[in-house]
Amino acid sequence: MEPATAIHLTPIGHVTRESGIELRLDEPYRAGLSGLGDFGHVVVVWWAGRYDVPEARQVLTVPLPYADNREVGVFACRAPVRPNLVMTTVCAIERVDQTRGVVEVGDIDAFDGTPLLDLKPYHGVTDRVRRLRVPEYVADWAEWLPESGTALMPGEA
Amino acid sequence: MEPATAIHLTPIGHVTRESGIELRLDEPYRAGLSGLGDFGHVVVVWWAGRYDVPEARQVLTVPLPYADNREVGVFACRAPVRPNLVMTTVCAIERVDQTRGVVEVGDIDAFDGTPLLDLKPYHGVTDRVRRLRVPEYVADWAEWLPESGTALMPGEA
Repeated sequence: MEPATAIHLTPIGHVTRESGIELRLDEPYRAGLSGLGDFGHVVVVWWAGRYDVPEARQVLTVPLPYADNREVGVFACRAPVRPNLVMTTVCAIERVDQTRGVVEVGDIDAFDGTPLLDLKPYHGVTDRVRRLRVPEYVADWAEWLPESGTALMPGEA
Repeated sequence: MEPATAIHLTPIGHVTRESGIELRLDEPYRAGLSGLGDFGHVVVVWWAGRYDVPEARQVLTVPLPYADNREVGVFACRAPVRPNLVMTTVCAIERVDQTRGVVEVGDIDAFDGTPLLDLKPYHGVTDRVRRLRVPEYVADWAEWLPESGTALMPGEA
């Protein structure tokens, strides 16, 4: 077992929502975008920085806003409170400009200015589950990522 | 824009490959597993600790082992060398034992002892892309996650 020492990350860029949604990479990381434009979707790994306070990182169960009287563990939902605030969102890729370090994407459930940690290409063989199983309280949710992507919750900005 | 300060993570547990594959959560985090067993798959967020050396974290392009003479950016492949060694693997859930903090899963491309950072339930609406687009050099890969899961590369252990 590896030692459970502290792990250090450095943001590679940030999300902007100014005119369309862009993932903007800082200059030192832009070479890493080579070839990403050949994929239709990207797994965006981001940091829920607004919740980076000790209280939010101690939360282990949350009431679900979309299910009456149901509280589940943070590892059974996508809430941005959890011990490590690493979030993942699958986004449609519209355009990659490696020189400027910009990936134009469909919608993302991350605020303007959100720090980016990593990008990964979306592959069928690793990311696409043929037979879904989900709890009854989300059984009426779509079985596919919407064409428009994953939005912020109403009221968020 | 959020300040690009350093980000600190603490492992919540680790992967074991001793008898079957288990995600073992440390005691303080086990309450977070409540409800995860209602899902068929989990997005496992882990730390590629064996590569946590400055050299690996400065790599921005890699030659692809599965495509002749092709080098792509680390954000266009899943190589465990990249600025932030946060990896994601979708795993089938076989059994969740919250009291012992154990999630039995299908295969995972992580070594024995790999630190775990987070677990998230796999939803269709957020994680399942209907229309795939991938480069020609992986066009013959499966379009779905295999029933057995994602394995280590041959020769890894």
